[in-house]
Amino acid sequence: MSSGPRTPYLVVDVPRMEANISRTATAAASAGVLLRPHVKTHKCVEIATRQLEAGATGITVATVGEAEVFVDHGFDDVFVAYPLWPDEHRGARLRALAERATLAVGVDGVESAERLGRLVPGLAVLVEVDSGQHRSGGPPGQAGTVAAAAARSGLDVRGAFTFPGHGYDPVGRESAARDEAAALEAAARSMRAEGVEPRVLSGGSTPTLEGGLQAGVATELRPGVYALNDAQQWELGVASPDELAITCRATVVSNAGGRWVLDSGAKALGADRAAYNTGFGRLLDRPGARIVQLSEHHAVVEGYADPPPLGGEVRVVPNHVCVAVNLADTLWADHGTGELEPWAVAARGRNS
Amino acid sequence: MSSGPRTPYLVVDVPRMEANISRTATAAASAGVLLRPHVKTHKCVEIATRQLEAGATGITVATVGEAEVFVDHGFDDVFVAYPLWPDEHRGARLRALAERATLAVGVDGVESAERLGRLVPGLAVLVEVDSGQHRSGGPPGQAGTVAAAAARSGLDVRGAFTFPGHGYDPVGRESAARDEAAALEAAARSMRAEGVEPRVLSGGSTPTLEGGLQAGVATELRPGVYALNDAQQWELGVASPDELAITCRATVVSNAGGRWVLDSGAKALGADRAAYNTGFGRLLDRPGARIVQLSEHHAVVEGYADPPPLGGEVRVVPNHVCVAVNLADTLWADHGTGELEPWAVAARGRNS
Repeated sequence: MSSGPRTPYLVVDVPRMEANISRTATAAASAGVLLRPHVKTHKCVEIATRQLEAGATGITVATVGEAEVFVDHGFDDVFVAYPLWPDEHRGARLRALAERATLAVGVDGVESAERLGRLVPGLAVLVEVDSGQHRSGGPPGQAGTVAAAAARSGLDVRGAFTFPGHGYDPVGRESAARDEAAALEAAARSMRAEGVEPRVLSGGSTPTLEGGLQAGVATELRPGVYALNDAQQWELGVASPDELAITCRATVVSNAGGRWVLDSGAKALGADRAAYNTGFGRLLDRPGARIVQLSEHHAVVEGYADPPPLGGEVRVVPNHVCVAVNLADTLWADHGTGELEPWAVAARGRNS
Repeated sequence: MSSGPRTPYLVVDVPRMEANISRTATAAASAGVLLRPHVKTHKCVEIATRQLEAGATGITVATVGEAEVFVDHGFDDVFVAYPLWPDEHRGARLRALAERATLAVGVDGVESAERLGRLVPGLAVLVEVDSGQHRSGGPPGQAGTVAAAAARSGLDVRGAFTFPGHGYDPVGRESAARDEAAALEAAARSMRAEGVEPRVLSGGSTPTLEGGLQAGVATELRPGVYALNDAQQWELGVASPDELAITCRATVVSNAGGRWVLDSGAKALGADRAAYNTGFGRLLDRPGARIVQLSEHHAVVEGYADPPPLGGEVRVVPNHVCVAVNLADTLWADHGTGELEPWAVAARGRNS
């Protein structure tokens, strides 16, 4: 009995991924912008290592748990791009991390800045500002108030950051990139007015990457998805089909009702579906096909005149790579040699 | 440093869950219908054990991997309610399981029936038919053709099954339950016409449970969600607030932009949002509040005039319990004693 993976499982096309990593690294270097890739996309040491080897200045994570996993694996420059609310327990974990790595975290309010300063004296922070996604982060013009409170509380204010999530829009990418640059500029002005000089202005997302580089304001960008891409980037027009570096291998398990049913359900692909997505996932080798119905272990496909046979295997491009990866324990690396190498999703499920 | 769980984490209200399990067990017994709960909802040995203790005839799973986990834990009557496409590897796993437990699997086509018969001689099967969800399963009137092929191939045809997934509709539950009963009746007729007498007619889902019991056709029901419930059942009108037995504990991490942001994002709650859902999740203690924006680690809440303070903890009811549970390694069982007991999500991620 072979011990290889069984459908549904995720395969990384390593040559494509390395091309994605290299292309973005080169573009960032040409623009004089540092790259700090967000590793929540892949949660995988092997991929983050390649990003550092291509010149990344450090990594970005979303949670303290992700930071712990990557520091355990020797990563020594980590930014937690999240407005942490620190309790005693989290404070102790941050102090432990700060002893082992160059650590910075996000902060977006006076109250959390004061708590952080008390719990983790001297910690580096970046003030989060809202550039238009309207999630966390305050108005850029108030960044100085937060920065001054952080400095007064004994934190090392490194700069400001924003996530232009509203750039996930087929016609809004360029304007979101402009919003991103404007927010970082306004944050910097606000901080300087309070006597805090920002050393880092950090932006970036995969859809606004090009705009962010052009804008010439950000000193650092934090894209995540670009290394692997997904059906969202494909449908946004950000990634071309030959830049899609991750697929879920799925088996056609049923055509009993004249429908073409795959075993790659929502527990393998994730259920994300943005308004601009044309389905719950795409088929890499059949651009006309769409997953029109998704349940936990079933994906119903339409739009293909000549489906593969029952038992046939297809390559599904997940809508959102970050959630698909977080459902798996292993990514199977395809180096083009015919063998698949298991890469652990080392930080899977590290939500806190 | 305390070793308890940190937000976001899932808590099971054990007394509520036990009341849900008991109420449904009693209703099934009164109706003379066997209950075979779907354990994909919780993937948890402690919960499945309580379901058996309350009188369930066995358990339902979605994958061979889930079956292996539960058989490893001593469960001896397992139905894989899925149209498996068996290759050599899966055939060997099924043979091994059939030696250790009373096993049955789904089949919905002649070709897969013939393969199953060759790979796992004598295996018990139920023919899947489509009662209106239009996913897997063929027309009920063709069940006899599949059953006859299965019998000819040396399988033990136990009966027919269907999943009335189209009953997840605020105004379609009763008609879906009628469809379910009609499909099982038609499948039975079709099988009898081919000389195969069905011993089991298996239906059921949490929303159609009552209708299924009333219909008097199904001999067995396979609801899963009823034990814990979720915001979908709440908004469908299937579960009342005091029957909601699982919540995700979340911390208010930001109000920098005047928004109330929780740390229970899509990587903790899942991104499922049905057309009838009013948001990406509900707050148990604040019925007016809605999660209006969900990203991986942020849930933006609106609709509450007097939000808790920064750092406050709230109880979020996930939209779809089955996907939320599959994101966690541990459920924290609240017995009402003030201590939380860790229950492993033993079959998490077992997709194949």
